[in-house]
Amino acid sequence: MTLTGNMLIGRQAITGDREAIHAIDPATHLPLEPAYHGGSAEHVEQACALAWATFDSYRSTPLNARAEFLESIASEIEALGDELIDRAVAESGLPRPRIQGERGRTCQQLRTFARTVRAGEWLDVRVDTALPERQPLPRPDLRQRHIPLGPVAVFGASNFPLAFSVAGGDSASALAAGCPVIVKAHGAHPGTSELVGRAVARAVEKCGLPEGVFSLLYGSGREVGIALVTDPRIKAVGFTGSRSGGLALCQAAQARPEPIPVYAEMSSINPVLLFPAALQARAETLAQGFVASLTQGAGQFCTNPGLVIARQGPALDRFIDSASEQVRRSPAQTMLTPGIFAAYESGIGSLAEHAQTLATGVQGTSPNQCQAQLFVTKAQAFLTDPALQAEVFGAASLIVQCTSDEEVREVLEHLEGQLTATLHLDDEDLHSARNLMPTLERKAGRLLVNGWPTGVEVSDAMVHGGPFPATSDSRSTSVGTAAILRFLRPVCYQDFPDELLPASLKRGNPLHLRRLLDGQREA
Amino acid sequence: MTLTGNMLIGRQAITGDREAIHAIDPATHLPLEPAYHGGSAEHVEQACALAWATFDSYRSTPLNARAEFLESIASEIEALGDELIDRAVAESGLPRPRIQGERGRTCQQLRTFARTVRAGEWLDVRVDTALPERQPLPRPDLRQRHIPLGPVAVFGASNFPLAFSVAGGDSASALAAGCPVIVKAHGAHPGTSELVGRAVARAVEKCGLPEGVFSLLYGSGREVGIALVTDPRIKAVGFTGSRSGGLALCQAAQARPEPIPVYAEMSSINPVLLFPAALQARAETLAQGFVASLTQGAGQFCTNPGLVIARQGPALDRFIDSASEQVRRSPAQTMLTPGIFAAYESGIGSLAEHAQTLATGVQGTSPNQCQAQLFVTKAQAFLTDPALQAEVFGAASLIVQCTSDEEVREVLEHLEGQLTATLHLDDEDLHSARNLMPTLERKAGRLLVNGWPTGVEVSDAMVHGGPFPATSDSRSTSVGTAAILRFLRPVCYQDFPDELLPASLKRGNPLHLRRLLDGQREA
Repeated sequence: MTLTGNMLIGRQAITGDREAIHAIDPATHLPLEPAYHGGSAEHVEQACALAWATFDSYRSTPLNARAEFLESIASEIEALGDELIDRAVAESGLPRPRIQGERGRTCQQLRTFARTVRAGEWLDVRVDTALPERQPLPRPDLRQRHIPLGPVAVFGASNFPLAFSVAGGDSASALAAGCPVIVKAHGAHPGTSELVGRAVARAVEKCGLPEGVFSLLYGSGREVGIALVTDPRIKAVGFTGSRSGGLALCQAAQARPEPIPVYAEMSSINPVLLFPAALQARAETLAQGFVASLTQGAGQFCTNPGLVIARQGPALDRFIDSASEQVRRSPAQTMLTPGIFAAYESGIGSLAEHAQTLATGVQGTSPNQCQAQLFVTKAQAFLTDPALQAEVFGAASLIVQCTSDEEVREVLEHLEGQLTATLHLDDEDLHSARNLMPTLERKAGRLLVNGWPTGVEVSDAMVHGGPFPATSDSRSTSVGTAAILRFLRPVCYQDFPDELLPASLKRGNPLHLRRLLDGQREA
Repeated sequence: MTLTGNMLIGRQAITGDREAIHAIDPATHLPLEPAYHGGSAEHVEQACALAWATFDSYRSTPLNARAEFLESIASEIEALGDELIDRAVAESGLPRPRIQGERGRTCQQLRTFARTVRAGEWLDVRVDTALPERQPLPRPDLRQRHIPLGPVAVFGASNFPLAFSVAGGDSASALAAGCPVIVKAHGAHPGTSELVGRAVARAVEKCGLPEGVFSLLYGSGREVGIALVTDPRIKAVGFTGSRSGGLALCQAAQARPEPIPVYAEMSSINPVLLFPAALQARAETLAQGFVASLTQGAGQFCTNPGLVIARQGPALDRFIDSASEQVRRSPAQTMLTPGIFAAYESGIGSLAEHAQTLATGVQGTSPNQCQAQLFVTKAQAFLTDPALQAEVFGAASLIVQCTSDEEVREVLEHLEGQLTATLHLDDEDLHSARNLMPTLERKAGRLLVNGWPTGVEVSDAMVHGGPFPATSDSRSTSVGTAAILRFLRPVCYQDFPDELLPASLKRGNPLHLRRLLDGQREA
């Protein structure tokens, strides 16, 4: 397929009328064809009008039809074959196996949401049958289900050109919930976005769905992004990216005449706690695992371990020596974009001013290659210097040396909200770990024992979320099947005749849902 | 019990140091003793410090202990006996049977949440067991549960001095979720608030819970209210009241360094649709039911039917004649406060300028007595005049005459978000009603057939919520057991040893929860 540089507004391929964006191959720093002209407020208007016109129809699709649509998107993405892989590699600088794996994850994610849609638990059907004889007042017949919020604006992330982009987790969960989706493509991978966008559009057509279910726009965050978030027909926003970008969307959404929810996944440094017995038993093994997690994908993960917390002493010294040695041997890696590389350089420059540099990775030989960085500081410095808690997106991490268990707890309490917190421990550490659990639960969305935070499973139990500023809304997850719940609201039907009830609430329970019926969960 | 005029900050009874508030008996317009001095930022600080210090302990109470606490609050409220009823009647001007009924509802609500806490479905336990052999990567063991957000600030409502106040729905659901609660009492019923607050405090003590679980403050919204909402230890807000009051809290919560959710239930005019066949068959019966719902409790309900929509014609004329006649005969009723009476007078004054007055109730003979009001307008006027859509809190309603089904739909689409929408229909109306369902579902949290919106059941399936401005967050309900979900967030535990897992997630499932286990709901 030849890339056209067009946006997709429903069934129409439209060329934007704003400045052209070219993707840059970060490995060569050379622009990639074609040009992608940004859209304007008028294109946002068109896409929103289509999405709105489609909403009632799309949300009333039977569960199976909606599930098949998600599966069809997965098949269409797979059918893109190597063209998708080639373009995503060129636009992201990520290694080919990583992009292949991400494609697999993206398609599996769509199929997992298809299963979730079919199971129908997300409808959360609750029925309280009428009690006409009850005193002092009769009880009416009450039936609750969830319906989708409305059209959703999705902002693709730079670091997962497939799994958190056009047909990534936010789009998949919103479409699963019954919301039309308008994606603003990330400027770093417009070609990948076009390919996937066309795959989604083909699935829309093959499934006989109305065209407004999906649109794909290019353009600046300030123009297209804000126009989308402030359009009255957009009812929720999914975003993965920087803290400043996420907060700008939150503010725009709150300033609307009708404020709407924004699910922004923003900033996390993912603390790793090394407990004494574990550190004593295997400082070098831990260092190896840590540096592997730190440097994977040039550290460009939301869950990258950017902070290590431990009691100072000989065991931590062994960890520091071993980790430093491995960081020094870490090859340079191409970052996703020149902008991300520049921000990384600036971030580690700032850390170097506030903490002691332990080790620096191998210097790069081609454009936009980062060097891994390891820093160390004392707990008391960390507790008083906010600069040490700022996320540096990339393979940089800071070790915080504590003099006591109490100082470890103080450092944890001092942390902002996080996506993850990791504990490395042995049996002898269990008591100390248990004491910290209340703090850790308050600070993070996912807690891990004896693993590494990079690698986020798409499953029912996953939480990729956490207190602010990890996300703008800690009440949900952006990865895993529970992500569908972000785009729903409950509606109650009182004393409705069966003819007017949706299938999920009809008295015969034709969808065979496990309802909460008069206080009891059906088997 | 002698009322003291004290605030309750944990176990301490403290006199505020700001201006004294006296409750006013609206029936006599005379102040009631004692004086309630408002608190200051320092009192907010004390209450928040106690709540925060208590949070980890309170949230780890076993489900049964927490349920017994809720039941104990109910028993303590009942033990207040007539003193509570007398004071609430004096402070609210509401009839004694209404207050007695509201006490019953409040205690039943607490006991219903106790049942919900014990059942544990709100934990939403999800388990994905490890798949160590999976290719290309093994799956870790993942376990999700929900934990409470943190201390919650609750703002009591004027119109339900028991059921939406100190121990009302917001407090009950937050305490059920495991959140300590700080209530800012409504200035209209400080004595009722003190009595109920002391009942809660006794339950805290009897159940051996830490004192910070509950505090009760008096004071101005501008000082105490904003100080509460902006305190970093407060993690969510429950509010029932005016649109301006709710929006002020939302803005304060969003402007925090760490924004927090605000559940504000604000403004709704609760449209009632009269379909042609139903209107033809029973215009007079409908008029009777309508005026009864409109004038009940002086119309001081969030779900008061403030808007009637119907096709014009002889049947609607019969409805109008009959309803007008009944409004004219409606006795004057004492409103909750002089301020609410003044706002009602101003609201009906504004409606009278923008619509035609059909009927006015009997004039009052004592202070703060309102007259029911009925207005009529044409659909085209309603569609172009925003003043006609403003909520008037009290027994006032506007009939909108439409010339076609299409105009009915336009009027509905033009509405802001609502708590309820009511349909009166016969079999011949089902087709028309079905066509409007998508619109109605998008506009309201609860849809009723052939009933009246006043009267909100506390049950599993109830939704007392809806799109903005009915509430600030349509994704939840403030009445019914699903209200507990507002104060929770998910946490995932990855590869945790059983010793560190909370009871709800341990491998033996000691709490016997119906988990979502490897994609299947347990029986």
